[in-house]
Amino acid sequence: MSEKNVAVAGATGVVGRQMLRVLEDRNFPVKSIKLLASERSKGMRLPFKGEELEVEVLTEDSFKGVDVALFSAGGGTSKKFAPAAAAAGCVAVDNSSAWRMDPDVPLVVPEVNPGDVAKHKGIIANPNCSTIQMVVVLKPLHDAATIRRVVVNTYQAVSGAGRDALDELDAQTRAVLNGEEPVCQVFPHPIAFNCLPQIPQSGAAFGANGYSTEEMKMVNETKKIMGDDSIQVTATTVRVPVHTGHSEAVNVETVKKLTAAQARELLSKAPGVIVQDDPDGFVYPLATEAAGKYDTFVGRIREDISHPSALDMWVVSDNLLKGAALNAVQIAELL
Amino acid sequence: MSEKNVAVAGATGVVGRQMLRVLEDRNFPVKSIKLLASERSKGMRLPFKGEELEVEVLTEDSFKGVDVALFSAGGGTSKKFAPAAAAAGCVAVDNSSAWRMDPDVPLVVPEVNPGDVAKHKGIIANPNCSTIQMVVVLKPLHDAATIRRVVVNTYQAVSGAGRDALDELDAQTRAVLNGEEPVCQVFPHPIAFNCLPQIPQSGAAFGANGYSTEEMKMVNETKKIMGDDSIQVTATTVRVPVHTGHSEAVNVETVKKLTAAQARELLSKAPGVIVQDDPDGFVYPLATEAAGKYDTFVGRIREDISHPSALDMWVVSDNLLKGAALNAVQIAELL
Repeated sequence: MSEKNVAVAGATGVVGRQMLRVLEDRNFPVKSIKLLASERSKGMRLPFKGEELEVEVLTEDSFKGVDVALFSAGGGTSKKFAPAAAAAGCVAVDNSSAWRMDPDVPLVVPEVNPGDVAKHKGIIANPNCSTIQMVVVLKPLHDAATIRRVVVNTYQAVSGAGRDALDELDAQTRAVLNGEEPVCQVFPHPIAFNCLPQIPQSGAAFGANGYSTEEMKMVNETKKIMGDDSIQVTATTVRVPVHTGHSEAVNVETVKKLTAAQARELLSKAPGVIVQDDPDGFVYPLATEAAGKYDTFVGRIREDISHPSALDMWVVSDNLLKGAALNAVQIAELL
Repeated sequence: MSEKNVAVAGATGVVGRQMLRVLEDRNFPVKSIKLLASERSKGMRLPFKGEELEVEVLTEDSFKGVDVALFSAGGGTSKKFAPAAAAAGCVAVDNSSAWRMDPDVPLVVPEVNPGDVAKHKGIIANPNCSTIQMVVVLKPLHDAATIRRVVVNTYQAVSGAGRDALDELDAQTRAVLNGEEPVCQVFPHPIAFNCLPQIPQSGAAFGANGYSTEEMKMVNETKKIMGDDSIQVTATTVRVPVHTGHSEAVNVETVKKLTAAQARELLSKAPGVIVQDDPDGFVYPLATEAAGKYDTFVGRIREDISHPSALDMWVVSDNLLKGAALNAVQIAELL
């Protein structure tokens, strides 16, 4: 791969910082790198390959001479600046939800639909964190047995809601342990020692059908990434008091019956997937263990006793890495 | 109801103490009360109706003259002493799993199958905590539309694992916040800021089919309580870092289609159930809110877009109260 001029928009955020680490860790061929953020972060310095780089203010002119821009700066910023990047001849890999369902924008998980990258017109969307880790596990099962329906419930980490959310989790946790009232600013209810069945935690979170926008992302993005609108999905997405690492209980109905052993075999060969499945030996995926790692971990694989052709499993991955920064860098590597 | 001579076996445990509070709070007609526990707790004093009562050692002779004994002392103790209680003419209401699937022992949730109490031969079993809160919600839906299949994933509180588990959660949480390694004694992995897809946390937790014993309780007890073996259930049970209050994401397929509005209407009239379902107004059941309350709370009720006749919902209750102590006292009230 030839060396690239890279920009990271939203470099100072939780995911932006991970993007820098992943670019460095994977030896992405960086010719030059620009760190971009809002006025608020101007002048901040972030480490990259042993240097301290200064953050510049993101403008429409930021992308001149840039080959690849990784965006993780929120939907509004992406809506405004990704077209400017594309117009400047740069490819924008966007981690927000702004472009994901646009028919002109490929939505890519490299282990699942790498070929879709070629269809881009300047913007490629990085899927939702919960969806990415699910589809890398669903793909080999779908190829082997055709998935009919998925029932997924998530146990999502607080880092998915950003740095302020992480600070709120820790502050609330300390308060509760000290017998004090937890203070809520980011979340509508305490997240410390609690489970919130609402993601995102603010904005127009719920649609007319009662599903949250996060839940509908899992429904719609799964179909688009897998390239199969016949896959039916229902989801209940829940925030839990975990720092990093999303866990998911996934029930998968297939046309052709798969045994647990067959599923384990298929998954053990799947790219980006590690099977951790010896419950008697206390071996199954855990958020705290997955945090900081690149793979998606799957375990508790078993035949669903309530259905003639379905599987239950437990899927865990780092929501900031495979769920965001890593997947974006992998897309850039495909370019 | 005439006054009863009552015993509480396992009185010093997390659930035993709640039993005393519930008996007092509901003005259960107590003529006399005996607090029973193992040798280890002998001489301990616990408050009941303004007095400090001394804990006696549980023996086979403890039940002479006792009308009702509430057991929450573990399966081994129940296996040994519940028959002794029954032989002494006492009715044992047992919170352990020891007797639940015995065909001669009724398994009762008063809102669901109160009539089964009459079939007892000296022992009545109190169901698993996760099952109780689910079936009080399933019952009115089953009566109206016949449930075919349930996919349930749980978010279970640490108090279900006892006092040492609660202490471990808090100690681990403090350690993590202080940048120290969490120490595991009760749980096989850290529970602080993590999700453990294993309940129970020790012993022979998993069967040959890959389901944990907790998961199989939800499968088998649901059928027995609802009195309908045709109800298919699959479950993934997960411990989360919550002190008290189990949350459950429940997907219910019915023979007759129910709209979300119909389900909400049915549930709003169901005994022991409170509908909290205005997600746009941030209203849905929460573990921290349900803790300390007697009801089972249900919200996020919506028609499953992946299936022609299914519902998704979020069910929360206090695992020590409706999930244990309250349900046991309600059974005693039916006697």
